[in-house]
Amino acid sequence: MKAGIARERLDGERRVAATPDTVKQLAGLGLEVEVESGAGLASGHSDQDYAAAGATVVQSLDLGSLDVYCHVRPMEPSTAEALRRGSVTVGLGSPASELPTVQALASGGITSFALELVPRISRAQSMDALTSQALVAGYRCVLEAAMRLPRFFPLYMTAAGTIPPARVLILGAGVAGLQAIGTAKRLGARVSANDIRPASADEVASMGGTFIKLDLETAEASGGYARELSADRGALQRALLAPHVAQADVLITTAAVPGRRAPLLVTREMVQGMRPGSVVVDLAAESGGNVEGSIPGQDLPIPTGDGHGTVTLVGIKDAASAMPADASRLFAKNVANLLALMTRDGTVSPDFSDEVVAGTCLTHHGDVRHMPTAEALAAQPRSEGAR
Amino acid sequence: MKAGIARERLDGERRVAATPDTVKQLAGLGLEVEVESGAGLASGHSDQDYAAAGATVVQSLDLGSLDVYCHVRPMEPSTAEALRRGSVTVGLGSPASELPTVQALASGGITSFALELVPRISRAQSMDALTSQALVAGYRCVLEAAMRLPRFFPLYMTAAGTIPPARVLILGAGVAGLQAIGTAKRLGARVSANDIRPASADEVASMGGTFIKLDLETAEASGGYARELSADRGALQRALLAPHVAQADVLITTAAVPGRRAPLLVTREMVQGMRPGSVVVDLAAESGGNVEGSIPGQDLPIPTGDGHGTVTLVGIKDAASAMPADASRLFAKNVANLLALMTRDGTVSPDFSDEVVAGTCLTHHGDVRHMPTAEALAAQPRSEGAR
Repeated sequence: MKAGIARERLDGERRVAATPDTVKQLAGLGLEVEVESGAGLASGHSDQDYAAAGATVVQSLDLGSLDVYCHVRPMEPSTAEALRRGSVTVGLGSPASELPTVQALASGGITSFALELVPRISRAQSMDALTSQALVAGYRCVLEAAMRLPRFFPLYMTAAGTIPPARVLILGAGVAGLQAIGTAKRLGARVSANDIRPASADEVASMGGTFIKLDLETAEASGGYARELSADRGALQRALLAPHVAQADVLITTAAVPGRRAPLLVTREMVQGMRPGSVVVDLAAESGGNVEGSIPGQDLPIPTGDGHGTVTLVGIKDAASAMPADASRLFAKNVANLLALMTRDGTVSPDFSDEVVAGTCLTHHGDVRHMPTAEALAAQPRSEGAR
Repeated sequence: MKAGIARERLDGERRVAATPDTVKQLAGLGLEVEVESGAGLASGHSDQDYAAAGATVVQSLDLGSLDVYCHVRPMEPSTAEALRRGSVTVGLGSPASELPTVQALASGGITSFALELVPRISRAQSMDALTSQALVAGYRCVLEAAMRLPRFFPLYMTAAGTIPPARVLILGAGVAGLQAIGTAKRLGARVSANDIRPASADEVASMGGTFIKLDLETAEASGGYARELSADRGALQRALLAPHVAQADVLITTAAVPGRRAPLLVTREMVQGMRPGSVVVDLAAESGGNVEGSIPGQDLPIPTGDGHGTVTLVGIKDAASAMPADASRLFAKNVANLLALMTRDGTVSPDFSDEVVAGTCLTHHGDVRHMPTAEALAAQPRSEGAR
C-alpha cells in the first residue's frame, strides 16, 4: 500500500507528518512511502534525507493514487475530494471547526482518523498528538514570555544588589500548563498556578509550582479535561484570580475546553491591574482566548490602570510550529504509531473493535462516526434556515 | 549639587542611568536630582515614580546648570560641549571608539568617569558596569538562541519517544559566557565551553558546563581579561574548535578583548559544517564579531555545506537593552555607588588618591587621564596626515 506525506500548505505551519525516522518505521510495516518535495525542510529534513530513509520524493502527491494520506493540519475539502474512496487519512481534523471537510470526507467514503480524538488511555499515549504538541506549546510560551519581559526570570545576587526572581502565574495546568510551570521553574522563576480540575494541585506541585487554591468547586469532565464553568462561577473565578494576576510579572494562560471556545479567565481590567512591563501570554488565543482582547499572532500594549506604563499582551499563534523539528518528531511518531496499530502484513485495515481505532475514527464508509461532529453537521442546515 | 539623569537618545537604547531606587540613594547623599521626562519608561519607571522618589522631572535637562551628569551610552561631542566646566559625568565612555567625545570632554574641562574603566578589584565590583551588563547579555543570548532553535533545550522522555537535550557550545567564558553556560544549563541543555584563560576550566565546571581543553597555550592579560592571540595561534584555535562546533545545536560566542576588535573564533566554513537548523549567536557582533560574517541586529541564513538546509547566524545588538528593567536596575546602582564613593556632605569631589576613582577617570582638568586613550588621541592627527 502507498502512503503519502503532504507538504503542509497553511501559512505559518512548519511541521511535517513524517520524519526520515518514521519513514523507516512505515517502510518496516510494509508500506511504500511517498514524500512531497520540501515537506520536511523547516523541520531540518531534506529530500535527500527522506530518500536515504527509503521514501520516494515526488514534486506533488497524486492524491488519487494513495492508500494512506498523512498530514498535520486539517485538510481542505478539495483535498478530501481528491482522495480515493476507501483510502485512509491520519492527521489533525479539528472536526468542530472544519465541518465542510468532514462532510467531504464522509461523502467521499474516506476512512479518516483525527488525532485529536485519540482516547486518553495509557495504551494510546504514543499516538496522542494533542499531548505531544501541547508539550511543545507549553515550553515555547515560557520562552515567548521571557523574551518580552524587561527583566530576568532567575534570582541573582550581584555586587550591585539582589534581583528577585520573576513571579510567573500559570492558569490552566493541563499538559501545556504543566510544561510551562516546569520550564519557568527551570529558568528560575517563582511559579504559581491554578486549574479547576481537582487533580491539579498535586500535578502543579510535582512540577515545582505553588498551587493557588480558589474557593470554587472543581470541575472535571471525562478524559481528565476541564469542563466549562457556568457564567456565575466564571465571574467568581475571575474575581478570585484578580489579586494573583496583579502580583504577577508574567501571566501565562493555557486553559482549553476541547471542541469549545476557550474560557475567559482574565478580563482587560485584570490585565490593567498588573505592573508596567508585565507580560501576558495567551496560549488559547487561537481558540477564542483566555484573556480578553488577545489576538493570535499579535503583541498588544495594554495601558496599566495607574497610567504609568503598559502590559504586553501576547496572543500566541502556531506555538508548536515555532519549534518544527521536535514538534514534527513527536507528531510523526504519533502518526506512525497509529498506523502501526492498524497495519498487518503491509495492509492498513483498521479494526474497529479496538477502542483506540474506533475512538480516533472521524469518518468511515460514508458515516461520521464521531457523535458530537455528526450532531453538529445534522444541526447545520437547520441553524442556517433559522437565520 | 544638582545631578541630571538623561533620557537616552540612541536608537535601540532602552536603559536609564538612575531608577527611583537610586534617586533615593543620590538624594540621601545630599544631591538634588533632575530626571528628564520619559527617561525610565522602557525600564518600567514613570515620571511619577521618579517624582515620588524625590526627583524633579524636567522636559529637558539644562546641561549647563548641572554639577553631575549621569548617562548610559557614551555622549555625543555636542553634549560634552554643553556641560559646565568642572562638572562631573558618569556613564559608559567607550573611549577607544569615541575619541571626538573624549576630546570634547577634555577641552571642556569636564571630570568624566567611564564605567568601563572601573578597576577589577573586589571593592569596585558594585560599580562595575561591564560585569553587570554582561550578566544581562549572557542570560539574554541564551533566550535568543532558544527562541530560534527548532527544537527543545531539555531532554524529554515522552510516550512518543525520547528527545535528547540540545548541545550548546559557548566560546568565551567571561561574565557573559559563564552566565550563558548557567542559563543554558538551567534550561536543560548539555553545555560545553572553551576559553583561552587558564582560570576558565574551573569556572566553566562550577556553572555546570563541560570544559573543552584545546591543545593551545593559555593567554591571560591583567585584570583577568583575555589577551589577543597571535595570527598563527588563532588559526590553530579555530582548527581545534571546528569539530566541537560541528557537533553543536547551538553555538554562542562571547569572546571580547577590551578596547580591541573581537577575535575571530569561527569561520564561515565552520558554521557551514553544522547541521541544518542549528543556531549561532554572536554576542560580539557589535565589536567586530567572533563569527565571520555576523551583522549586528540581523539573522542570516547560512547554507550548510551538505546543501540540506541552513544555519541561523544571529548578530546580537543591544543585548542588555533588551531587558531594560533589570539592566537599568544594575547599571543605576553602579552609577550611584561610584557617586557615593566620591560624595561628601552633598558635594561630589573626586579623591584621586583612591585607586577606583583614579582608575575610572577618563578626563579631568583638561587632561585625558586614561593612558591608552591619550595615546590614541595623540596618534590621531599623525595617522590622518599619513594618508
